[in-house]
Amino acid sequence: MDEFKLIKDYFQRLSQKSPSSLNLNDDVFFDKKNNLVISVDTYNEGSHFIDFKKPDLVIKKIIRSSISDLISKGVNPKFYFISASGNKKNFSKFNLSKISKSLNEEQNKYNIILGGGDTVFSNKLSFTITSVGFSDNIIYRNKTKNNDDIYVSGNLGDSYLGLLVLQKKIKLNTLSSNYFTSQYFMPNIKLKLANQLKSFANSSMDISDGLIADLDKLINNQKFSYKLCLNDIPISYNLKKILKSKKLSKINLISKGDDYQVLFTASKSKRTLIKKVSNKLGIKITKIGIIQNKSLISSIIDQNNTVITVKNKGYFHKF
Amino acid sequence: MDEFKLIKDYFQRLSQKSPSSLNLNDDVFFDKKNNLVISVDTYNEGSHFIDFKKPDLVIKKIIRSSISDLISKGVNPKFYFISASGNKKNFSKFNLSKISKSLNEEQNKYNIILGGGDTVFSNKLSFTITSVGFSDNIIYRNKTKNNDDIYVSGNLGDSYLGLLVLQKKIKLNTLSSNYFTSQYFMPNIKLKLANQLKSFANSSMDISDGLIADLDKLINNQKFSYKLCLNDIPISYNLKKILKSKKLSKINLISKGDDYQVLFTASKSKRTLIKKVSNKLGIKITKIGIIQNKSLISSIIDQNNTVITVKNKGYFHKF
Repeated sequence: MDEFKLIKDYFQRLSQKSPSSLNLNDDVFFDKKNNLVISVDTYNEGSHFIDFKKPDLVIKKIIRSSISDLISKGVNPKFYFISASGNKKNFSKFNLSKISKSLNEEQNKYNIILGGGDTVFSNKLSFTITSVGFSDNIIYRNKTKNNDDIYVSGNLGDSYLGLLVLQKKIKLNTLSSNYFTSQYFMPNIKLKLANQLKSFANSSMDISDGLIADLDKLINNQKFSYKLCLNDIPISYNLKKILKSKKLSKINLISKGDDYQVLFTASKSKRTLIKKVSNKLGIKITKIGIIQNKSLISSIIDQNNTVITVKNKGYFHKF
Repeated sequence: MDEFKLIKDYFQRLSQKSPSSLNLNDDVFFDKKNNLVISVDTYNEGSHFIDFKKPDLVIKKIIRSSISDLISKGVNPKFYFISASGNKKNFSKFNLSKISKSLNEEQNKYNIILGGGDTVFSNKLSFTITSVGFSDNIIYRNKTKNNDDIYVSGNLGDSYLGLLVLQKKIKLNTLSSNYFTSQYFMPNIKLKLANQLKSFANSSMDISDGLIADLDKLINNQKFSYKLCLNDIPISYNLKKILKSKKLSKINLISKGDDYQVLFTASKSKRTLIKKVSNKLGIKITKIGIIQNKSLISSIIDQNNTVITVKNKGYFHKF
C-alpha cells in the first residue's frame, strides 16, 4: 500500500474534526485562528540520506528540506524542533560539534531558532524535524485555476545528479562532483520568495518527491491536467554540460525530487508581476507549462511538440 | 555522555535566541506571544516499548505519554502529529485498523485532533509525536519555593510492575497481570488537572523517567533539596498486595518511571485548596514530601525516619 492510500484509509477521518489539518491532503497544518503553520517530517539513514559520513551536510539538508515546506506555502519558518535517534558513534563529540555548527549556520541563514526536541538512543539513525511558522494565510494545494501558468523557482535536477555521484552511479571530475553533491546537501531554497508568493500564486508546494509526482499532488483533487514543455524546465549550466557530455535524458533527471524548489501556479494576468518580483529578488522563476481542462491528458512535450513518456514519476514510500 | 550533557553542550546555545525554548531546560516549548505550547518526543521499539504485538496499546501509551507533557504544565493538548517509521508488517491493514481505532478512542477521551505527520518506510519501528496546545501561561520547572510541599497525582509504580510482567521478569496471576500491564500501556493521566494546576502549583512536570530522577530535574537549577516520606508515596491497593506477597521493596518499584502522573510543588498555604480540587475532580493528589534548603541533603526517609538509599534513580539515555 502506498503512503497516500494509508493516510487516506486510516488517518484522514481522525483529522476531520478540525479544518486546520487540511484533511491531511496538503503540505502543512494551518490553524487560522492561531496563525499557526506546522510541518513534521522524518529523515532516516539509508532512505532520506545515504549515510552519516558528513553529519554537517546531512543536517543542513534535512533542515532545509523541512523549512522548505513552509516557505513554499508563503510562510516564514520561525522555530524548528529536532528529535534525534542514534548511537554513540552517530553522536560522538566530533559529530555533535559539526551538527551544532551546521545548525548555527542554518539558523543565521534562514532566521530560525531551535525550539526543542528529543534525543534518544537507537542503533538506527533517524531525525524528525518539526518546523513552525506564524501566518494569517497560506497558499494551498488544489486551488489551481484553469489556464493557470505553472512555474518553478531555481533549477531542477542538480540535486539528483549529486545523489547519483554519491551513490557512485555516475563519475564526474572533482569540480563537477563537488558542485552537484553541494546542491544535493544544500539545496538553494528560496526563503525570500515566501513573503511574495501570496501576491501571485493560486496554488503552491515544494518539489521534494519529483516535479511530476508533486505536480500530480498539487492538483490531485481538481478536474485539471497539465501540459509541461520539457525545454522550458530550468536546469543549471553545469547540468546542461553533463547532459550533453554523458548523453543523459533531461526528463529522467529533472523529475526525481530532492530539489526543494517552489512549484506554483498563477493566473496569466500575474506574468508581469512575477517577472518584476523575480528581478527584484534575484530569484530565477520559470514558466514551465499550463494547467488545462481534465478532458485533455496530462503531458510533457518536447521542442517538436512530441509527447514524452516519463519512466519514473518520483519517490513514494510503500508499505 | 548522557542526554542532558549532550543538550547542554551542543544544543542549548542554539535555542538562546528565543525565550520560548526555555533554554531547552523544561518539558515544553512555550511561545508566550503566540500562546503556543509544543512538546516533541520519539518512541522507539525496543527502548520505549518492547515490541509491536499490541499496536492498539502501544499507540495509546505513546499518545498519553506525549500529551502528559502538556497536561503537567497546566495546558490542554489540542492537536497531535504522528511521524511513523515502520515496515509492511508493522503497518499491515490489520495493525493500521487497530492503530486508527485506538487513536480515535484517545481523541474522544482527551479531546485532541490529529493535525498531521509523516509516514516513512523503515525496518526500525519508531514514532515521533508532536503535541500542541494553546495557553497564555504554563507552570515551569525551577520555580519551586523553599518549604513548598511536594505532591503527586494518582499512584506510582503500577506501570513499572506492568513492564516487569511484560518482560517476564515477574509472574503474577492473570487478573493481576492484566491490571498492571493495562496501567503500563494506558497510564491514567489526569487531563482535568490541567485547568486547575495553575491555581496552586509553583512548579510542575510529569513523571516519565522516575520520581527521583524527575524531582531532581524539577529543581535542578535551584538551590534546594527535597525530603520525601516513602510511606506517603501513593501506590495502588493492587501494588500493595504484590509488595507484600512477593516481598518486594517499595522504593525500587516507585522510582522507575513511565507513571505519567503530575509531580508538582505548592506553598503550604494552598493545602486546603488542593484538597478541595482533589475532591471536586475525584483525582487523588498526595503530599509526599517537602522542598528544603540545599544545606540539607536530599533524602527519602522511611517510617522510622531512617534515610533510604535508592539503587536506580531512573531512566537516562546514554550516548
